[in-house]
Amino acid sequence: MSKLVASLKEAIALTGLRDGMTISFHHHLRNGDYVLNMVMEQIAALGYKDLTVNASSLFDVHEPLLEHIRNHVVTRLQTDYMSGVLGSAISSGVMEKPVEFRTHGGRPADIQSGRTPVDVAFIAAPTADPMGNCSGKYGKSACGSLGYAFADAMHAKKVVVITDNLVSYPLADWSISESYVDYVVQVDSIGNAAGIVSGTTKITRDPVGLAMAADAAQVIRHSGLLKDGFSFQTGAGGASLATAKFLKSIMLREGIKGSFGLGGITGYMVEMLNAGCFETLLDVQCFDLDAVTSIRDNPRHREISAAHYAAPGCRSAIVDSLDVVILGATEIDVDFNVNVHTDSTGRIMGGSGGHSDTAAGAKLAMIIAPLSRARLPIVTDHVTCVSTPGSTVDVLVTQKGIAVNPARKELRDRLVSAGLPVRDIHELKEMAEKLTGIPRKLPRGDRPVAEILYRDGSHLDTIYNVPGSL
Amino acid sequence: MSKLVASLKEAIALTGLRDGMTISFHHHLRNGDYVLNMVMEQIAALGYKDLTVNASSLFDVHEPLLEHIRNHVVTRLQTDYMSGVLGSAISSGVMEKPVEFRTHGGRPADIQSGRTPVDVAFIAAPTADPMGNCSGKYGKSACGSLGYAFADAMHAKKVVVITDNLVSYPLADWSISESYVDYVVQVDSIGNAAGIVSGTTKITRDPVGLAMAADAAQVIRHSGLLKDGFSFQTGAGGASLATAKFLKSIMLREGIKGSFGLGGITGYMVEMLNAGCFETLLDVQCFDLDAVTSIRDNPRHREISAAHYAAPGCRSAIVDSLDVVILGATEIDVDFNVNVHTDSTGRIMGGSGGHSDTAAGAKLAMIIAPLSRARLPIVTDHVTCVSTPGSTVDVLVTQKGIAVNPARKELRDRLVSAGLPVRDIHELKEMAEKLTGIPRKLPRGDRPVAEILYRDGSHLDTIYNVPGSL
Repeated sequence: MSKLVASLKEAIALTGLRDGMTISFHHHLRNGDYVLNMVMEQIAALGYKDLTVNASSLFDVHEPLLEHIRNHVVTRLQTDYMSGVLGSAISSGVMEKPVEFRTHGGRPADIQSGRTPVDVAFIAAPTADPMGNCSGKYGKSACGSLGYAFADAMHAKKVVVITDNLVSYPLADWSISESYVDYVVQVDSIGNAAGIVSGTTKITRDPVGLAMAADAAQVIRHSGLLKDGFSFQTGAGGASLATAKFLKSIMLREGIKGSFGLGGITGYMVEMLNAGCFETLLDVQCFDLDAVTSIRDNPRHREISAAHYAAPGCRSAIVDSLDVVILGATEIDVDFNVNVHTDSTGRIMGGSGGHSDTAAGAKLAMIIAPLSRARLPIVTDHVTCVSTPGSTVDVLVTQKGIAVNPARKELRDRLVSAGLPVRDIHELKEMAEKLTGIPRKLPRGDRPVAEILYRDGSHLDTIYNVPGSL
Repeated sequence: MSKLVASLKEAIALTGLRDGMTISFHHHLRNGDYVLNMVMEQIAALGYKDLTVNASSLFDVHEPLLEHIRNHVVTRLQTDYMSGVLGSAISSGVMEKPVEFRTHGGRPADIQSGRTPVDVAFIAAPTADPMGNCSGKYGKSACGSLGYAFADAMHAKKVVVITDNLVSYPLADWSISESYVDYVVQVDSIGNAAGIVSGTTKITRDPVGLAMAADAAQVIRHSGLLKDGFSFQTGAGGASLATAKFLKSIMLREGIKGSFGLGGITGYMVEMLNAGCFETLLDVQCFDLDAVTSIRDNPRHREISAAHYAAPGCRSAIVDSLDVVILGATEIDVDFNVNVHTDSTGRIMGGSGGHSDTAAGAKLAMIIAPLSRARLPIVTDHVTCVSTPGSTVDVLVTQKGIAVNPARKELRDRLVSAGLPVRDIHELKEMAEKLTGIPRKLPRGDRPVAEILYRDGSHLDTIYNVPGSL
């Protein structure tokens, strides 16, 4: 017995795929992913129409998806993040139905509850055996964690594993087990290694970024949370990494033993693990080669599913126990609402990912952002799109001062006592506007191109088309 | 946020347990388990009635369950195995409704499909954190794998983790994740270490057992399956271990690199792993301390869920890829049907466990049994109870010869060519009867006390009460 089928075409036929069904993809191969495109090309060639694509994230490499949208092969899109090339086309109105944006926690919750059932899941697997046990830790296309693929594998009606490194049975160190897999397809390559992971994650050298990072580290230090058992998540952006660097120095100097580092994991978090800042790393996605090597070789670096990471539909998720998360923003308004879906012109170039999940869970959710970018203010009266509700955001750190959510008076007092440059967020807004001028109010189109769903399924906001570009 | 509750009583109240519901237990603490008894004692004290208990196995230590049955606290029992003390009482008719016997593969299949829904699962956890991440690998009550508990945790409406080793969050090396756990209760002790695992597994010294083991190893050697990639399961019985010992010698001598050892794992299988006979051990239950140490420390020794092990309801299970399994029998008949539920008098003293799952999956399912025990023949015309259908059993090895299922002519030819003492099974039956005399046909009661359900849910047999003992 073997689940190997000779071709992707045959596997698609075996799944019983029909027009109108939902297929799903995960994004651990990031901008190096070949699998979504190769599956969609085959599906288009077979003449399918009116499919829903549920992808945990979409990158510029997935530009061919636009052609399948134009041809009505794909008529509905569900995702947690979409980078600029696709985002721009969606904002221009290429699709009739609005894109449904979820979060990295809301997506698995909706899949497992049946609110967004998946008919066929396609799992890009850097290593698999002929029965479908598979892992991201090994092979030429190794990506480390397969965290976002678990819900798809566990709940889709049919599951196809696509691999470029077929090993003999059993793959002992499986992430997703054969229990869930229907078919296995061997292909030459599932991705471009250079696009899957970056060589190293880089700390910012920009003085503005370093100034913000230094203040951010001081906010954490004086928050009351930085003590033994401390837990932390940060992204892969330059200022976030610089904050982690400053934080690492403080933790080592003061002998603070943290409990866990969480999230998408970079080599910098691996360094913190190895330096003794954390007991363990809990990893839903590896951002670079150091993280991939570490999750493979270090038993204290553990793979987690997206549900375990952040799903509100579970009995608990790790974000519920998180102390501090550092997050970015394209805009933040005076009510601390954050936009990470669009730029200031309203054009889609991102998505929540785990942004609103971690903000909701963490005891301290901190936004690091400069006052302005590309001559547009970051701090505004109203964000163009609410990605993360202001009620879950605690602090904004800019290069000109720190604003604390008024609901967090105790935290504000702590930071003021520590002598940090705490300002009212309206003051920061005015400073931003002085730098850039008050931006001209941009006209908004009247056609919804995306709906933003909060992690609990409630409706947060609607993104409209960008006029003149249809 | 924490899921810790102050007492078991409080946890039971929080689950919303009501009369008539189903509660479940797993059996990794074996005859050292305190958890089932402590939960049932509390439930009885709280006045609940008419509960269904779904326990993966029941041991003599669970004798207090009989009192709860007599008092109608428990009115329905679902299990895969029941040792003598409870079995004898059930055979005497202590319970009104027949016990439902399933298999270790059928049980998780029925739980996950909803055929046997569980309202509240109680997980005996040798180590847990306050959010419910838990493991069997650590702590004073370490039992190793928690394989049988996964289906309960993943599908029960409420899940209570009971631990005597609470560690700080997060327990990085969890087996069952907090995603599934509602409440955590800390108690002094979940079990008696001496009953949880034996010190060492012992190879038989009995000459009859050794003779059978030597022949069994030769059957495997000449089956055509003993080559690179070979996979193997055996139990903890003396003759089975002796077979493994002979097999190990052959594999090392001939340089055969097996792929995996499967099942309940003993120190002897760990020795085979470490000697290079297998690439990996796939472990649903640890039988002894060596296995517990190995699953904790050796990344090639992996925990598997009961579903991954053997569930027919999954896309595949590991048993589907198994080459050889060695199994026992209390009786085997001329059609190769095997009884492991009752002794020859019809009294319950066992259960299928993984017997019929592995027999169905393995390419070669071998029964090792002496011709007679306690002056009763093992080979009979009709087994008292069909636990495993003869169509899935390939070979019987006794001390007086080897019988091959007539459906396996190619295998028979191989063994005859190798000069092994192959006999017709009728011949073995006659030899058995010469040793013991033809046993008096025992009268059968007319009240069903247990129903045997095959792994696919179909009805295999009914066990009736043993008359005169009601």
